[in-house]
This record gives sequence, C-alpha cells and structure tokens, in this order.
Amino acid sequence: MTGPTVNASTNTNDRSVFLRRESAARGYCRRFDTVFTSARGSLMRDEAGREYIDFLAGCAALNYGHNDPAMREALLAHIGADGLAMGLDLHSTAKRAFLDTFESVILKPRGLPHRVQFTGPTGTNAVEAAMKLARKVTGRHNIIAFTNGYHGVTLGALAATGSAYNRMGLPLSGVTRVPFDGYMGSDMDSAALLARLLDDPSSGVDAPAAILLETVQGEGGLNAASPGWVQRIAALARQHGALLIVDDVQAGCGRTGSFFSFEPMGIVPDLVAMSKSLSGFGLPMALVLIHPDHDQWRPAEHNGTFRGNTHAFVTATAALQTYWREPGFEAEIARRAALTHAHLERIGREVPGSVLKGRGMMQGLDVHSGDLAGQVCSLAFARGLVIETSGAHDQVLKVLAPLNTPLPLLEQGLSILHGAVTDTLATSLRHAA
Amino acid sequence: MTGPTVNASTNTNDRSVFLRRESAARGYCRRFDTVFTSARGSLMRDEAGREYIDFLAGCAALNYGHNDPAMREALLAHIGADGLAMGLDLHSTAKRAFLDTFESVILKPRGLPHRVQFTGPTGTNAVEAAMKLARKVTGRHNIIAFTNGYHGVTLGALAATGSAYNRMGLPLSGVTRVPFDGYMGSDMDSAALLARLLDDPSSGVDAPAAILLETVQGEGGLNAASPGWVQRIAALARQHGALLIVDDVQAGCGRTGSFFSFEPMGIVPDLVAMSKSLSGFGLPMALVLIHPDHDQWRPAEHNGTFRGNTHAFVTATAALQTYWREPGFEAEIARRAALTHAHLERIGREVPGSVLKGRGMMQGLDVHSGDLAGQVCSLAFARGLVIETSGAHDQVLKVLAPLNTPLPLLEQGLSILHGAVTDTLATSLRHAA
Amino acid sequence: MTGPTVNASTNTNDRSVFLRRESAARGYCRRFDTVFTSARGSLMRDEAGREYIDFLAGCAALNYGHNDPAMREALLAHIGADGLAMGLDLHSTAKRAFLDTFESVILKPRGLPHRVQFTGPTGTNAVEAAMKLARKVTGRHNIIAFTNGYHGVTLGALAATGSAYNRMGLPLSGVTRVPFDGYMGSDMDSAALLARLLDDPSSGVDAPAAILLETVQGEGGLNAASPGWVQRIAALARQHGALLIVDDVQAGCGRTGSFFSFEPMGIVPDLVAMSKSLSGFGLPMALVLIHPDHDQWRPAEHNGTFRGNTHAFVTATAALQTYWREPGFEAEIARRAALTHAHLERIGREVPGSVLKGRGMMQGLDVHSGDLAGQVCSLAFARGLVIETSGAHDQVLKVLAPLNTPLPLLEQGLSILHGAVTDTLATSLRHAA
Amino acid sequence: MTGPTVNASTNTNDRSVFLRRESAARGYCRRFDTVFTSARGSLMRDEAGREYIDFLAGCAALNYGHNDPAMREALLAHIGADGLAMGLDLHSTAKRAFLDTFESVILKPRGLPHRVQFTGPTGTNAVEAAMKLARKVTGRHNIIAFTNGYHGVTLGALAATGSAYNRMGLPLSGVTRVPFDGYMGSDMDSAALLARLLDDPSSGVDAPAAILLETVQGEGGLNAASPGWVQRIAALARQHGALLIVDDVQAGCGRTGSFFSFEPMGIVPDLVAMSKSLSGFGLPMALVLIHPDHDQWRPAEHNGTFRGNTHAFVTATAALQTYWREPGFEAEIARRAALTHAHLERIGREVPGSVLKGRGMMQGLDVHSGDLAGQVCSLAFARGLVIETSGAHDQVLKVLAPLNTPLPLLEQGLSILHGAVTDTLATSLRHAA
Repeated sequence: MTGPTVNASTNTNDRSVFLRRESAARGYCRRFDTVFTSARGSLMRDEAGREYIDFLAGCAALNYGHNDPAMREALLAHIGADGLAMGLDLHSTAKRAFLDTFESVILKPRGLPHRVQFTGPTGTNAVEAAMKLARKVTGRHNIIAFTNGYHGVTLGALAATGSAYNRMGLPLSGVTRVPFDGYMGSDMDSAALLARLLDDPSSGVDAPAAILLETVQGEGGLNAASPGWVQRIAALARQHGALLIVDDVQAGCGRTGSFFSFEPMGIVPDLVAMSKSLSGFGLPMALVLIHPDHDQWRPAEHNGTFRGNTHAFVTATAALQTYWREPGFEAEIARRAALTHAHLERIGREVPGSVLKGRGMMQGLDVHSGDLAGQVCSLAFARGLVIETSGAHDQVLKVLAPLNTPLPLLEQGLSILHGAVTDTLATSLRHAA
Repeated sequence: MTGPTVNASTNTNDRSVFLRRESAARGYCRRFDTVFTSARGSLMRDEAGREYIDFLAGCAALNYGHNDPAMREALLAHIGADGLAMGLDLHSTAKRAFLDTFESVILKPRGLPHRVQFTGPTGTNAVEAAMKLARKVTGRHNIIAFTNGYHGVTLGALAATGSAYNRMGLPLSGVTRVPFDGYMGSDMDSAALLARLLDDPSSGVDAPAAILLETVQGEGGLNAASPGWVQRIAALARQHGALLIVDDVQAGCGRTGSFFSFEPMGIVPDLVAMSKSLSGFGLPMALVLIHPDHDQWRPAEHNGTFRGNTHAFVTATAALQTYWREPGFEAEIARRAALTHAHLERIGREVPGSVLKGRGMMQGLDVHSGDLAGQVCSLAFARGLVIETSGAHDQVLKVLAPLNTPLPLLEQGLSILHGAVTDTLATSLRHAA
Repeated sequence: MTGPTVNASTNTNDRSVFLRRESAARGYCRRFDTVFTSARGSLMRDEAGREYIDFLAGCAALNYGHNDPAMREALLAHIGADGLAMGLDLHSTAKRAFLDTFESVILKPRGLPHRVQFTGPTGTNAVEAAMKLARKVTGRHNIIAFTNGYHGVTLGALAATGSAYNRMGLPLSGVTRVPFDGYMGSDMDSAALLARLLDDPSSGVDAPAAILLETVQGEGGLNAASPGWVQRIAALARQHGALLIVDDVQAGCGRTGSFFSFEPMGIVPDLVAMSKSLSGFGLPMALVLIHPDHDQWRPAEHNGTFRGNTHAFVTATAALQTYWREPGFEAEIARRAALTHAHLERIGREVPGSVLKGRGMMQGLDVHSGDLAGQVCSLAFARGLVIETSGAHDQVLKVLAPLNTPLPLLEQGLSILHGAVTDTLATSLRHAA
Repeated sequence: MTGPTVNASTNTNDRSVFLRRESAARGYCRRFDTVFTSARGSLMRDEAGREYIDFLAGCAALNYGHNDPAMREALLAHIGADGLAMGLDLHSTAKRAFLDTFESVILKPRGLPHRVQFTGPTGTNAVEAAMKLARKVTGRHNIIAFTNGYHGVTLGALAATGSAYNRMGLPLSGVTRVPFDGYMGSDMDSAALLARLLDDPSSGVDAPAAILLETVQGEGGLNAASPGWVQRIAALARQHGALLIVDDVQAGCGRTGSFFSFEPMGIVPDLVAMSKSLSGFGLPMALVLIHPDHDQWRPAEHNGTFRGNTHAFVTATAALQTYWREPGFEAEIARRAALTHAHLERIGREVPGSVLKGRGMMQGLDVHSGDLAGQVCSLAFARGLVIETSGAHDQVLKVLAPLNTPLPLLEQGLSILHGAVTDTLATSLRHAA
C-alpha cells in the first residue's frame, strides 16, 4: 500500500508485530484475531480474503457502514484538491459546510438553538468539555451520573463511568452515583430517589452542576431509559439549577432511530456530547452542543490540537446530506430495528430467562452469563460475524449493525447469531451432561 | 465540494455561521479571521485565494507541511481500495505496516524496547493513559509536573497543566508542582530542590508515581531544559521508584531536530506520550510508548473508540518511510533551525531585553509583552504569515514552521516576521510619543 | 471566680463581649440567649439565678447530667493530689484505671476483643481515625455513608456528613452516599440497593474500605435503623471485605438504652467511634474501638496533643463504675424512655401528621416544620426547658435528657414541652385565621 | 482515687492492660515506658515515686508546667461550686471571663481587632476551621503550605502537614507545597519562588485561599523563619487576595518569648490557630482568631460538641491573669531561653556538624542522626529527664521545658541532657572502635 516497507511482515495474517510491539492494552483484536484489510458497507475483509458481516460497526462509530460511497467520493475529492487536512480551530470551508448543513438538516428542523463546540475528537473529550462547562456555568462541582453509565476513561469522564475495570481503583471525585431507570427492577423509582436526594438539604448529595445520562446505556448493557423517567430527570435538573447533559456518543446519530436518542422524549438537553458516527466514515470527530444560554467558554479555554479534523467535516457533511435530509432514513432504521427485534425474540426463546434489551438499532439479548455470551461471539466470528457483548458482566449480546445494512445481510447476520446461540447452548448441555 | 449544500454560505469568506453556531470556545480563528480552504507544504490558501506562509503548522501537528505528496498518495490509494477507515483496536494491515515501520525506523535504531499503546487520538488522552499506567504500576498517586507545563485539558492531564486559564479554578488533584529548569534564572537549581523534596520524608511531597516533563515546553513559552537537568530528573525518578514520562506531543516527531526530543540527552523514559505530527498528515493519532517492564495494562483497561485511526496509520507509515529512513532529514532540520536562529537573533536585537527561546524548529523570541507579541502576529498575518505566540503571558513569538519548509519560504516568512516586529515597534513608539 | 478580672463584665447576664469578640460561628447561644453559670444533674442555672431543665444534655455529652457527685469527687481528689492533668499518650495511673474498668465493665461482658485508640478528644477526630484506619487496612479509598448521617466537620469526616449547611460546598471526596434505612419510606429497600451496587462491577461504586453508620441518626432527625437492616449492612461489609464502622458518638454510652447502640442488633463492628458522654462529666474525650485484626496503626501515625485527657479518664472511670457495673441502669433508662415515648405520643396527637422518631433516650417528634419546631423550642426555653431540634429541616423536636433525670423532672420537662407545642399551635392558628 | 476498681492492676507500674487493650497507635509511652501518676511544675512523678524533669511539657501544651497553683485553685473552686463543665457553645460566665480577659490582656494591648472562634478542642480542628473559612471567604480552594509543616492529622489539616508518616499515602488534596524559609540553605530564596509562582498565570499553582505557616516549625525540626521572610510571605498573601493563617498551636502562648510567635515580625495575620497551652493547665482547648473582615461563618457552620470546654476557660483565664497581665513574664522567658541557648551551644560543640535550631523556649540541637538523638533521649530518661526529638528524621533534640521552669531545674535538666549526649557519643565511639 505504501510502497516497499522496511522489515514488513510478509505472511498473510502475520500478527507477530502486534505481540511484539503492541501494548497489552489492546482489546477487540483478542476475540477477533485476524488481520483486517478492507471493508465496504456491512462487510469487512481480512488479509486472507475472508469476509465478515459487521454487527459491531466500530462500536457504533460506523452507523452508515464502511467506506460509504458518497462520503468516500467527497473525501477523495477534498484530498485530491489539497483540501485542508488539519486546521486547528481555524475557519475553513469544510467546517463551514458542516456547520451550515448541521444547522439546516439537524438543528433547525428540531428547533434546537444550540451552538457547536468542536472538542478533541473523542467521546471522552466531549464529555469532559460538557462537565467542565457545566461546572463553570453553575459554579458547582458535583455531577450526578448513573449506575452502569459509560462516559470515557480520561479522569473527569472516568469519574462518571461505572465500570470498576476502567476505574482501576483510582481516586476519582466530583460525581454522585444514582441508580439508572430500572436498576432495581420495578421495586424502586430511581427518579423519586433522586428527587428526594436533591430536595433534602441533609442528603449528603451536593447541589449538582449537571445530571449526565445516556438514554440508552450502550456499554452498560443496552439499558434503555423510559421516556417518562428521562422527562422527570430533565425536570429535576431544571428545578435544581443543574444542566442536563445527554451523552449521545453511542446512542446518537440515528442509532436509536432518530438523529438524537432523546427526540422521542420531548426534552431539550442543555448540553449534548456527540462523537462516534458523527463523521459518518469512522474518522475521529466529537462535539458538544451547547444551549446558547450556557455558552460561557472563553476562547480556547477548552482546547486541543485536533478539535478541527477537516476530513471528518467533509464526510460528516456528506453523511448528513445523504442520510438525514430526507425523512425516509428513519423509516429504514425502524424497519431494521423491527427485524432485529423479531429475530432476537426468537433467539431469546432458546435461552431460559434471557431478556431483550435496548431500542432501535442498539438492541441485544441479556443471556445472564458473560461466559455464554463470549462463547456465542467467538462461534459467530468463526462463522463470519463480528459481534460483541456489553453489560457489567459482558452478558449482553449486542447487535450494533450499520443502520443501512442491506436487509438480506442483516437477516444473514442474525441467522448466524441464532445458530451460534443454539450450538453454544447444545455444547454446554453436552458438557454439563 | 460535497454537491449543492442546503442553506450554504454563498459569499466568499462568509463567516456568519461561525458566529451564529460555533461556540465561544473557538480560538485561533479569532486572530486568523479568514476562511481557509486548501493548503500544500508550507502554504495555506483562503477562500479569497490569498496565500499564507504557515509558521504555526497545526501547532506542530504538521511537521511535514500540508498534504505531503507521498502521504497523500498513500492515503488516496488506501481509500480508493476501500481500506479500513476505522477499526477500533482490531489488527489491520495498516496498523501492522505502521508498527513494523515504527519498529524498524524509529525504535530499533535507537535501542528502544518500548511497546506501543494506541490511545484515543489526542495528546491529552495519551498523557492520561501514561499517568494512569504510572499510578497502576507504582501503586502511588502523586505525579510531579513542572511550572509552565502543558499536557492537555481533560481532568487528569489538566491537573498537570500549568495554565490557570485552562485550569479554570477546577479542583484538580494528584499533582505536585516543581519549578522547571531555569524557572528562577540561574538563582535556583530546581533539580536539587526536587532531590531534596523527594529525599525528605517530611517535605509534604508524596512519593511520586511519575515525573512528567516536556524537554521543551511549547505552550509554556519554548522553555528548553538543559540536558544535564533532564538527566538529573531522570536519575531522581529511577532512584525514587517513579516512572519518567516524557510528554513529546509537541516536541517529538523531529520538532527539536531528532525524532524524540530527548535523544540528545541520552535518557530512556519509561513512558513517552506522542501525538500531533505522528500521522504526518495532521490526522488525529496518539500513542504511548511503554517500556515492557511497565506494560501492565489489562485488555481495553484504557479504551476509546478511535484508538485505531487507520487513515492515520497509513500516512504515519508514509511519513516514517519518507522522512526518517534516511539520516539526511535531521541535517535538513538542523539547517532550518540554524537559519531560524540567526534570523531571530537579528530580530531580537530590535527588541530591548528580548530573549531567544527554544531549540531546533521550536524557537521563538520572548518580547516580554503579550500585547506587543499579539500585535506583531496580527500585522504578520495581514502580510501573509500565520504565526502565533506562547508563554504564560503570550509574550513569546513562536516559530513552528514545517520541518521541511523550503528555505526560500522560511526566509520569506522570517522576513515578514522581522518587518512586523520593526513596524509594530515603530507604531508603538509613535503612539508613545 | 478567678479573682478580680480586668475589664470584666459587671452586669448580670451581660453578653456584650460575646457580640464584640465571639465569632459569628457561635450557635446554641443564639436560641438560649442567657449566661449560664452552674448546673447539677438535669438542672442548669443562669447568672440571674433562673433554673432550666436540661433536655439537651450537651447534645448527648452529659448522659449522666451535670456535675455528677461521684465523678466530681473523683475529679476533685485527682486534682487535689496533683494528679496528671495532661499526659499526651503516656502511660498514667488514670489511663490504666480507665482501661481496666472499660475492659472489665464494658468490653469483657459483651465479648468484645477490641482495643482502644485514644484520639484527639472530639467525635470528628475519632471518626477520621476510623476512616483512615479502614483505608489503611483495606488499601481502598471509598467509604459508604448514608443520607442524613452526621459524623463531624473536619474534611475527612465532613465528606461523610450529609448536611449541606456543614459541607459548605467544599469539594469533598472519598465517600459514596446511600439511602439510610427507611429513607424512601417502605417503598425502597436500601440494603438491597447497596447489595446490588456492591455486587455490580459496573455500578460506579468503588469497592469500599468501610461502611460507616449511626444506628440512630441523631443530628439527621432521630432516624432509627431497624435491627434487620443493620444486620444486613454488617453482612454486606463482611462479604465485600469492607470494615463496618459504627459511629456511636451520639447514640453510644447508654443513650439508646444499652451501652453501645448496636447491642440489640447482635453485630460486632470492626471499628466503633465514641466520644460525647464517654468522660461522663462533659470533658472532651474520644476513642476508637478497634478489632485486634485491624489494629495496624504504627506508633503515633494518628496523633494529637490531647489524645490523653487525664481528667476525662478519671471521670470516665467513675462513670463506668457508678452506672455500668450494675445491670439496673439499663432498666432505669428503659423506664425513662417509655415515659418519654408515652408523652411524645400524646403530644404527637396534637400535631397532625407528626411522627415519633428515635429510640431509647434519643426520641423526638417530627412536626414537619422547622419553623414550628423552632417556635416550640423558644417558647419552652422561656418556660424553663432547654430543648433543641434536629433533622434536615430542623423539624424534629429532640428529647435528649440525661439518662438519670429524676422522673419528676422528666415529667415536668415533657409537660413544658407539651404546653409549648399546644400554645405554639394555638398561636399559629390565630395568626392563620 | 476512684475507689476500689474492678479488676484493677495491683502492681506498681503494671503496664499489662496497655499492651492488652491499647491500640498500637500509642506513641510517647514507648520511649517513656513507665506509669506516671502526678506532676507539679516541671516535675513529673511515676507510680514508683521516681521524679522526672519535664522538657517535653505536653509537647508545649504545658507552658506553665503541671498543676499550676493559681489555675488549680480556680478550677477546684469552679468544680466545687458546680460550675458548668460542658456547655456546648452556650454563653457562660466562665467563657465570658475568658473572653473579657483575653480581650484586655492579649488582644487590646496588641491592637488586634480579631474575633474568637471556639472550635473543637484540638489544634487540628482549629486549623481545619481556619482553612475552611479561608476557602469560604475567598471562594478559592488552594492553600499554600510549607515543607516540614505540621498542622494536624484530620484530612483537611493533614493535606497541609508534611510528614509522609502521618500522610499515610492517602489521596490528600487542596494544598500546594512550597519550600520553607532556609529549606535549601542560603541557595534559594523561597519567598522569591513563591512570589514568582503566584505572579505567573501558568505556574500551575492555583490562586490561593490562604497561606498557612508556622513561624517556628515545631514538629518539622524547630525551623525558625526569619522575620523578613515572614513579612514577605504576609505581603504576598495580601497582594494575591489570600488570607494569611498563622498556625500558632505550638509556637504560641509564649513559647517563642511573646504571646504570639509573630509579634516580633510586625505582621497581623488574618487568622490564627491556637491550642495546646491555651488552657494553661493542659486541658483540651482550641480557637481561631479571625479578623472581623473575614468572620463570615454562619451559626454553627463549623460546629463540634466540645467547642466550649468550660474547665479550660477557667484555667485559661487564670493563666492569662497570672502570667500575661504583667510584662515581667516575657523577660523571664527570655532569661530561660538565653540559658538554654548557652547550654545547647556548649552541648553542640561536642557533636560535630550539629546545628542549633529554633528560638525562645523552643530550641534544640540538630545532631543529623535520628538514631543518635533517640539514644540520647533514652539515656536522659533513664537519668530522670523527659525530652523528645523532632524533625523529618527525628534528628533534632528538642527542649520544650515549661516557660516558668525554675532556673536550677532548667540547669539540672540541661546538664542531664549534656551528660547524655557526651555518654552516648562515647558509647558510639567505643562501638565504632
């Protein structure tokens, strides 16, 4: 690809340099242990020429699949014309086109007056920016976050992230943890608990700068909050002078069916953190939507070299124009979500006690066993399907197919999943016998 | 660029959407208030067709200039072949090519046994990963950082960053601040002070997990540490069981003359954070080099969606092959550094009390006045030169030209700078008269 | 008292120097705005010779009333013999007598193997010592504390205290807040919630060093935990490797009927913080009981000048010998508790919706209005009764009479309280009419 | 003393219960391993009737020696008259007498307009109150503290304390550490360093709420700051909007020669923390002096049960009247300080490289070896002298005799010390030979 390389690996699927030189921090490549080379739409191809249906989609960073043709052409044209590649936060024609398009296609039709802050191009950076801004605006420190939330791994965002594995026992501070909707089943109304904690001047919960939530907790196990619960949380934020931050890094960009995950709930967050599928093409990009009332940043107060990834602006603009200018796209997502739901219901019947989770195109099946879920994923991979788990115990099979996956491929992938579940259970029973 | 846009700005250099929809957090675009469209090498072009010599180089993220032909071709070929664009941290041929090349071109010739951790593609994320790993490895919390250091704005890294403007009065913790080399002029030996603080069980400075430093503080005002001081700091780290982290985000990738900024000092850091010019093309990318003794990460313990930006692997590989396979590149940098130095000396003679700062291709002139430096930059921009300031009071004119800037362009840019200084001083004198 | 003073106040009840020279931090003296001079048993006397029945008892620091004769004689004898007054943490005959007595009268009969750490003589200091020791023993940082808990105002203990008024918006850390027993009425089982939070590796609640609780929350509003709930919390602590710390500063020393408040629950805490009535005489004294398995202190690791208040040892020894050597004392407390309960029930019938709170000799009436409760206290004071409120809204009338209050005085005090409630309500009704 | 005790130790100097039941946290009793029973003036007596000259004086909490007759009589009279023993922060005649006397004898003659906050009766509590108030008044969080400072062990104060032994590796925050006067010998001007750190907006040292210092660091090794340095620090505090807090817990109450340690420096601190010898008699007592401009406490915002130790008010009033009403006392202290200095100089000549430390009646000899200093103390104790060490390595022999020690006893104690040094050195030489 880049001419004769020095000391290049010459064998197909040679993984020796990864073992020799890549840190033990590497993760996904352990389960999906091959060397990928190219991809298009919902199909990935490895060096041996094997194809895989992609139900991981860059962990929801590839909502429109790999190498979408419209985005690809726009990007090739941009590069071919010596378009700016990186421009710090300078004005550029590419950024302007993105802002114009984002305004007209996304913000205006939804009546959102928000401004756009381009942050360092990672979800965690957008979350950190939102948390810092909320603290600045309110003069308060505490941020309410929820059980099983995932918001990133830099220290500010990590304090809000639930996973002990990622928290690493570090002394994190500034966050009060509250049970998410449904955390104790129907036994506990966690919005009522939060209301009491905030009303009670002796609860020990400091007046919050913000309430930070995902409407569907992707990493946390596809826990979908009910609209009523989210509305009550939004009302609590307003009532107590806290900003409402929706972390739409994973659930946004159409993943739940609408562009923003919170659209069906009729709320207007003060701040929205976005990333992942924003560029459409899988290029690093992140932003925070800020209600104008709260845009109290000073110039470059939250800075970062790559806060303008111009290539990402180009593909992001194309993504909005291709998929979001017409209302038909949401119907296409809904159709695939329904199909996924029906299949998962059928699969679920095979796993006693399993529970369907999530909504839209972030659905999954909680099989109550990380071991089982892991075995299913491995078997599915052997059969040509890339699919991962989520949840506190990695016990949820998580279908994150591209939103535009052709229906036959979606069916095929779900069939592979179905077969992998059936066969894994059969093997388990044999072993148990 | 992307076909007829909806509601697009139609006037050349139309900036209305930025005012309407971009957050007040935007920064560089305020001084350089035009709309850039394309760039090649050391020249940027705005929408009106005006060209600018680039002495900012993406704040050292464009060490090889804009749209370097070799990288561009490699990237176009990759995209044209439906090469993976984003692959989480899966194995890919592009990542393998990068690792193979980085090993053979950079690590092996320098005898570095380090492993590579791909982090979220921002410098702050790499620094956070390094800080977290040091804390995990040592079981300690405290990290020694230095006055005027800049390490990023997410909360973990921000605790180590010196700027009050960026720190925003947030309650940051886990860092002990020590004067950088030369902070008090020749009156104080800050390595001796640190030695005493670490030796003294009652100093109040907790046993450190790491000592974190830049060998040249870019944002802090181009403060270059002496080799002897860095060696003593490295020895203190070893002696006290702390890891030495070099933040080479800005000073690395050849900016000071060698690939790593610490090469002339003969030290081997435990961890090195890199980003900015790593991809060569200005694409977001970051990594941590980890001495194998300390690679104690568990899989995905520090994770992040974009920790594999495949486009960046492609251009980064091309950058290493194009510029670093042959030893001649360092001589080219040295030549430009000498030329820059000579010019700055001449310019400096016009500004009473001014001081030359930095080394290699990160040199500048401390004019002891943020106002003056700002006026110079604005005048230079009006004359076709993009140049910025750094330092606690923005009082240092900072030359960060691409390392491969053609000599005539470099001369031309320095002449513009010289003229801008001369004319700004003349205007000041007139006003004062 | 001390001979002719310089510039002494000469008028009875002269309060000018307090206004002139005492900080605005002063509190109780605002409601009880007279100048007290002497006291005996349950009666206090002010400078004008007026007597007051004491239902505040030094906020439970005077469980045996004022100037108990046995303790007084012991203290006078000690001082008369030039007994050591302050001895740091040196061995002294007074400390030995206390330890011998505490061992034989309190620890041995209850089968408690605990060791005694004498801390700085305040409850908050004992709590800080317990929190620090738990962190040391477990190597963990997080401590579980409960809504409406009160543990002191130095920063470590304050992080566990619920009151926003005392927390002052300071950035406190290291504590996770969980609802106390009954916090949401019968709608929520907070032990089940805690169990889930601790079991769930993605709950965001870090593995705790300790669970810290009061069995009856004195300042929090006389919230009494049920034995079953406390047992389940104790089991959770054991199961998750956390130490159980009972803060018995206010509820201990017989206040709830037994020496320790947790005796009826059949649990053995790892650490117990005690203070307030420990000395019996109202002299500053505090200690932590430490299960021998956890006595990992190094010499003077937690130190403090007054950790041996020898006068307090003398009176504390007398208190144990006088009151706790015979089992009859608990019956006397129970009798007074029952009488208090009966009266409060009667009083409660006059206040619609009021709720009886607490147990033993720390009972009260939640009248759901801080204003009402405050007016009642003020009227009671005007009629010769010192009584205070507690609770998040100061809405609980709190009866903290000495445990040995003569029955007629107890009756008289409760009658004054009853009258004050009746008359305050009548006045309110008149005003409302 | 307390009548027939249950299970009492019957043997003279029986220490079994301490080993059996006192926590390993106990400290001083390890070196001075006998059982003390009574004391008068500068003499302590153990159970075996042995007498010791006291050069520790309750670690400066017994500046007027043990059982001072005037205070003793006042206290006996107070107790005999059923005077209030504990009165929370109610007004009492004893508190009024103290405030009147403190105002007329101490504050007015020194022109100090300060108000008095009675805190929990420990030094650490007073320091915590001062730190919290400074944070409230300024709205800032950071507090500047110095190397080798000692301010207590509760978490807020502990963050300011230097000793790693006491800090226990806990994650403490909110304090920036700066070298104390003379920390690097004459090589470094630490006030100049602090000035630069505070002037530099990129130093990483956040704008401070307060600067907290001891003018003589007692625990830190009797490091005496020069008047000029303290004045410059005071000026820096004023210039940067920070409060100046003097921790006079150990150095106050005449220990350095004047009532406050800072009197010779001509500064007026915003806040002064006091404790130790405040009560005169060794009874627990602490307070914060607050400049009226900063008395922004709300009622009971910083509270605590024992913030009014009435017995301590009684003896404290007697102490002020006995010792501080006449100017002669300072001359008496000076005489003893000079005598101590002369002796220590003589002793110092025997220890090569030793350095005299401290001033007034808190002087000592740095012998550069904790082992040597410890052996000297043990030998001295065997010969009837109680004396301790301080400093980061316990390397400073610390003479803290009562300020009113009769001259012959002072001479005798210093002679014992001299002999112990001589003989310890001789033994060492023999062993080395």
